[in-house]
Amino acid sequence: MGLLEEFDQTALAAAGKELHGFATELFPICRSITGDGLRRTLALIRERIPLETIEVPTGTGVFDWTVPKEWNVRDAYIKGPDGKRIVDFQQCNLHLVNYSAPVHASMTLNELKSHLFTLPDTPEWIPYRTSYYQENWGFCLSHNQLLTLEDGDYSVSVDSTLEDGHLTYGECYLPGRSTDEILISCHACHPSLANDNLSGLSVATHLAQYLAGRDLRYSYRFLFIPGTIGAITWLSRNRANVGRIRHGLVLTCIGDPGGFHYKKSRRGDAEIDRAVAHVLRHQDEPFEMLEFSPYGYDERQYCSPGFNLPVGCLMRSVWGSFPQYHTSADNLDFMQPLSLARSLRVCVALVDLLENNRRYCNQNPYCEPQLGRRDLYRSTGGEGIGQEISARLWVLNLSDGQHSLLDIAERSRLPFRAIRVAADLLFQNGLLVVAPS
Amino acid sequence: MGLLEEFDQTALAAAGKELHGFATELFPICRSITGDGLRRTLALIRERIPLETIEVPTGTGVFDWTVPKEWNVRDAYIKGPDGKRIVDFQQCNLHLVNYSAPVHASMTLNELKSHLFTLPDTPEWIPYRTSYYQENWGFCLSHNQLLTLEDGDYSVSVDSTLEDGHLTYGECYLPGRSTDEILISCHACHPSLANDNLSGLSVATHLAQYLAGRDLRYSYRFLFIPGTIGAITWLSRNRANVGRIRHGLVLTCIGDPGGFHYKKSRRGDAEIDRAVAHVLRHQDEPFEMLEFSPYGYDERQYCSPGFNLPVGCLMRSVWGSFPQYHTSADNLDFMQPLSLARSLRVCVALVDLLENNRRYCNQNPYCEPQLGRRDLYRSTGGEGIGQEISARLWVLNLSDGQHSLLDIAERSRLPFRAIRVAADLLFQNGLLVVAPS
Amino acid sequence: MGLLEEFDQTALAAAGKELHGFATELFPICRSITGDGLRRTLALIRERIPLETIEVPTGTGVFDWTVPKEWNVRDAYIKGPDGKRIVDFQQCNLHLVNYSAPVHASMTLNELKSHLFTLPDTPEWIPYRTSYYQENWGFCLSHNQLLTLEDGDYSVSVDSTLEDGHLTYGECYLPGRSTDEILISCHACHPSLANDNLSGLSVATHLAQYLAGRDLRYSYRFLFIPGTIGAITWLSRNRANVGRIRHGLVLTCIGDPGGFHYKKSRRGDAEIDRAVAHVLRHQDEPFEMLEFSPYGYDERQYCSPGFNLPVGCLMRSVWGSFPQYHTSADNLDFMQPLSLARSLRVCVALVDLLENNRRYCNQNPYCEPQLGRRDLYRSTGGEGIGQEISARLWVLNLSDGQHSLLDIAERSRLPFRAIRVAADLLFQNGLLVVAPS
Repeated sequence: MGLLEEFDQTALAAAGKELHGFATELFPICRSITGDGLRRTLALIRERIPLETIEVPTGTGVFDWTVPKEWNVRDAYIKGPDGKRIVDFQQCNLHLVNYSAPVHASMTLNELKSHLFTLPDTPEWIPYRTSYYQENWGFCLSHNQLLTLEDGDYSVSVDSTLEDGHLTYGECYLPGRSTDEILISCHACHPSLANDNLSGLSVATHLAQYLAGRDLRYSYRFLFIPGTIGAITWLSRNRANVGRIRHGLVLTCIGDPGGFHYKKSRRGDAEIDRAVAHVLRHQDEPFEMLEFSPYGYDERQYCSPGFNLPVGCLMRSVWGSFPQYHTSADNLDFMQPLSLARSLRVCVALVDLLENNRRYCNQNPYCEPQLGRRDLYRSTGGEGIGQEISARLWVLNLSDGQHSLLDIAERSRLPFRAIRVAADLLFQNGLLVVAPS
Repeated sequence: MGLLEEFDQTALAAAGKELHGFATELFPICRSITGDGLRRTLALIRERIPLETIEVPTGTGVFDWTVPKEWNVRDAYIKGPDGKRIVDFQQCNLHLVNYSAPVHASMTLNELKSHLFTLPDTPEWIPYRTSYYQENWGFCLSHNQLLTLEDGDYSVSVDSTLEDGHLTYGECYLPGRSTDEILISCHACHPSLANDNLSGLSVATHLAQYLAGRDLRYSYRFLFIPGTIGAITWLSRNRANVGRIRHGLVLTCIGDPGGFHYKKSRRGDAEIDRAVAHVLRHQDEPFEMLEFSPYGYDERQYCSPGFNLPVGCLMRSVWGSFPQYHTSADNLDFMQPLSLARSLRVCVALVDLLENNRRYCNQNPYCEPQLGRRDLYRSTGGEGIGQEISARLWVLNLSDGQHSLLDIAERSRLPFRAIRVAADLLFQNGLLVVAPS
Repeated sequence: MGLLEEFDQTALAAAGKELHGFATELFPICRSITGDGLRRTLALIRERIPLETIEVPTGTGVFDWTVPKEWNVRDAYIKGPDGKRIVDFQQCNLHLVNYSAPVHASMTLNELKSHLFTLPDTPEWIPYRTSYYQENWGFCLSHNQLLTLEDGDYSVSVDSTLEDGHLTYGECYLPGRSTDEILISCHACHPSLANDNLSGLSVATHLAQYLAGRDLRYSYRFLFIPGTIGAITWLSRNRANVGRIRHGLVLTCIGDPGGFHYKKSRRGDAEIDRAVAHVLRHQDEPFEMLEFSPYGYDERQYCSPGFNLPVGCLMRSVWGSFPQYHTSADNLDFMQPLSLARSLRVCVALVDLLENNRRYCNQNPYCEPQLGRRDLYRSTGGEGIGQEISARLWVLNLSDGQHSLLDIAERSRLPFRAIRVAADLLFQNGLLVVAPS
């Protein structure tokens, strides 16, 4: 039984509950591009899948970049003129600008304001802001709250450390029959944000769980890394081996109720690009294909010109295009169990396609073979044929060693699964052999 | 005078009458993939064009297939409980499932029913069914009649023979100046069905008649063959020579009142595909271009991956898409004289194009030659030019030895005929030479 | 500062006034494909830009053509039965069919009529007609006037000379750092017609004026030539050097209020074709791209198959498509100062693009370079990026030595100027080097 057929035997609702549940566990942790929040996150993933954790020391050169200091935070708040905590990191880790340097100071409201970030257009939401590579501090709060602040002396405390330490990332490698790899990458550096971060982490973790222990054609490598610097660090340490990556996918923003978006790799016509297009065309939700651009998630690094890897980015709603993006409204309610489950199903369908996408040679290339005497045709002539026989004819006609099953699925406009089933049957009947690669 | 100009001097109505008349002669014959009905059909064609008849013995291996037993039928009927013939092959040869094995038996209505075929959606029509490769017998009747049958004992008689004999097909070869061939293929195995069978036979016969005896660039080969097994047999016997086929066309369902459909060859961009598209674009009836698929008529065999010949399929209504298809309603009324005549005209236009499609070299490639002093331009400057001069400029500009006249017609959006006339004139004026091939 | 930025510092209104003013000076002159009208026109251009005037003797063979006799005209008229001048070349030089042979004769109205040209559909306008290569004479007048002519004896006088002399053309060469050339060609052979002739002359003259004395990558060659025979003559005399022409543009009908039209070169995808498309897409007026055809202006000769130069034709309204074309209504009112100025701006933008269109190599091709520490990125993370940073990321991502800045502008859908500014900045920061060509 194929990977997808097997997956479809479980109820999507159950899968959604499991996916959302794991995200709920991860939600409260204050992740950043380094530090203990990231380590705790990886530890929870390791409870589910075999995961190696790599620690790279501060100061390590990675291409044009340097691994930054490690950031950890114990507490952070703003106290109002009356001495009460009015903005409190303990209540919501988005309140603190991520990577804020330690500070303990008293200041007027006016002085304070240059360190405050709000969203006037969605005045109830807290923005998410970072300051990784410029030492600074700041707080984020709802615009409504900002408007209530009165003149007076405010006391500010960021009890953080920004010190030599390590950048941490997790790597799950599932060996297959070939050392050719499929790379699944997701960022794990955002604090309490659900769709932008946890959706990818949860779907990737469960995909690895689903694949682990199976007999697979490709090897699979799952990366759980801090955005940008994590991908750069990984690429820097694995430069010699990236040639093994035959297909790759960045997974992010994959849990909201919007339709799918797939941003193509820099190559634009890589097998992964065509495979995702095919899978999305043959599922039920709306979808859109997006051209590559050099802004976005870690496909920026995988698709930098020196690497130019066949890595695309699978999303539902596109970062920046939904109002909840990078705000406190990107929470566990915004992310839907069923959306997560259907995203996981798309990933499984994609793996199923890539695992089975081969070129065959028709052993009877001159005229059609007589399918009827092999019980592969309908017996009474004069009526039409159905999708099953149509798929067999397509596979036979295009199996000249040049066309992959995906090529055949695209040209016939039949779903890959129908083409694969036909190819399996014809192969079992000795009508096809696998083409030399 | 060109082939098409000459054709256009005859009234279409007269051509239509002739085409429909020949189909009317052929209609009553009970054709099948072997047997005397097919032989009688070929004999009638041979009265009009030079035709070689080939007999291939039962049991001959043809690629993955074997030439089947020869089928002939003298009589077949069902008698009702009152002993009267209620379904009678003598009245309509569609009543008998084609290739039915002999049977003489008595049975209940229930037993009989598993051998009966009807069309509940069009209850007045008799379906057409076959059972070539699985020995069986059956009868086709209108659904209305089926509903009137009462319980009782029925007697069934199929007085047929299914014995070692031959598969017969006809081949008309018209030699041209070159041994490069144009193949026209149509199936001749359907009994009393008009559009699906006789339209192609009649148009192909008359096209051969029109071309016979002319001085032609290409050689022409017309095949009148049983569907599938006939094409396979012919290809098997002529495998070494198919490389001569430069362009090919399967003709079928070409007599109904619907617009044209052309199904492209497997290559998709063969000269025949572009030529048909051009001809159809520049005639008056609606048309549609269809992508290749491996289901349909004998293009299935010509376009199998080992051959991959440049053979498309020209139709009016597409098999299976009109309700009369494979029923008794596909009769002589459904097929229109004028539709047949216009189909023949399209074939002549296509031959005209292929015969004249050449690449030329402009002998004055640097700047335009001075057409005015050769009387090939208008004399008073300042006004526009018409299609005639435009065609000359296009031919001169693109005759660099790389572009065929069809390329030029396509790029200029002018009809091929205008381009050909311009090329002839420029050639006569010494401004062009034929490009080395 | 770039060429376009500098141009944009002058008011368009002032440029328009200057462009229209020069056309006004040129308007009354009776130009033709040879003769003193053409010489006077070139003399006025030479007052503004360095211009070499070339005189080619009558009878010189130029490819398939021969330089014709030189035509000059002192006076021409028709006198009515009452002896009064009713059609007078002195009042409007369009009245005389251009290149009319001398004649002094008396004739009836009927005899005269075969030499008269009018426009019944626009009965107030005088048509423009020529008879270069067939010796003849004729007069053009308004259709309304023709209707008033009464029977009687008319006296006709064309005091012209058609004698051995010269064909004259002007050439302005601006040497650049490379001998690779950009060709700008416009015809200078039409008498008092504004849009069709003077618009191109004026814009080309002012473009040359704008570029003269600058340090430029390309050399620029401006041709002011009689249509057809002038281009053929120039190509005949410069055949050995046309390989230097990297990009070329025929400028004509560039002063009316219509939107832009660009007719592509015969190649269809030359850099000039893509560059013009890009420039037109990123300006404010409507525009349309037209496929090449071998009828039109001198691109006919530059794009003849032996040369096949990358030369397109930039117009506003297309010749023949506006009613004023080749009539007395194509006058100084029809041509608008602002239209001329905006056309000149498009030319400057095009030169700016071609001058700066290079391929670069990203010096940090593995992952993105850290723009932040070079002050080339925004400092607070979590928000979007603007066009400036987007342009930098695009340039870095595609600068693999294969993609030109125009390629990058097209793929990113950003204006070339934004891409060029980004490339300059990255180059100054050592992040790019120019790719070897």
